[in-house]
Amino acid sequence: MIKIVAKAQVKADMVEAYKAAAKELVEKSREEEGNVFYALNVSTADPCCLTFIESWKDQAAIDFHNATEHFTRIIPQLNAMCEGAQQVDFYTEVEY
Amino acid sequence: MIKIVAKAQVKADMVEAYKAAAKELVEKSREEEGNVFYALNVSTADPCCLTFIESWKDQAAIDFHNATEHFTRIIPQLNAMCEGAQQVDFYTEVEY
Repeated sequence: MIKIVAKAQVKADMVEAYKAAAKELVEKSREEEGNVFYALNVSTADPCCLTFIESWKDQAAIDFHNATEHFTRIIPQLNAMCEGAQQVDFYTEVEY
Repeated sequence: MIKIVAKAQVKADMVEAYKAAAKELVEKSREEEGNVFYALNVSTADPCCLTFIESWKDQAAIDFHNATEHFTRIIPQLNAMCEGAQQVDFYTEVEY
C-alpha cells in the first residue's frame, strides 16, 4: 500500500475556490479501481494549509491516476491557487 | 473525521527496533472503537523517516486514544529512538 501526503499552502483568498475545484478530483479519484482512500484535509493550525491524504494499492494505480483526465486537468488549476509548490511525501505502509 | 500525520526522524540504527515496537501500538489502536485507520509508513525518499498516518471519528476518539495504556507506554519508547521531536500535523477532512 502506497500513501501520499501532498501539502499545499493556498492563497488566503483562494481557499474556498480550492476546495470547490478539488471536489470533482476527490470524487473521481475515489472511483478509481486502484484507490484505497482519497481526501482533502484542512490543517487545524492553518486554514490555508490544504493537504491531500491518499492511499493506493500499488505504483500502477498511481501511474494510472496521474494520467487521468481529472488529474491532468484539475491539478494545474489547484496549483495556480497556491503559494509555491506542493510538498509531496510518498510512503509505503509497514505491513505487520 | 480527523486525520493525524505524525512524522519522526528515527536514528539509523533504530529503524527496525522502531518498527517492531510500533507493531503493538498499530494493532491495538486499530481495535479502538473511534479509529478509522491507523498505519506506520516509511518514506520512499528516506528510510529513517517513519510516519504514522491516522484517522479518527472525532476529538473524543483521539482523547481516548491518547489516554490508553498502549499509547502512554509505547509512544515514549518510540520517541527515545528518534532524532528530535515528531512533527505532528492535525487535519479535518473536507466533506463534500
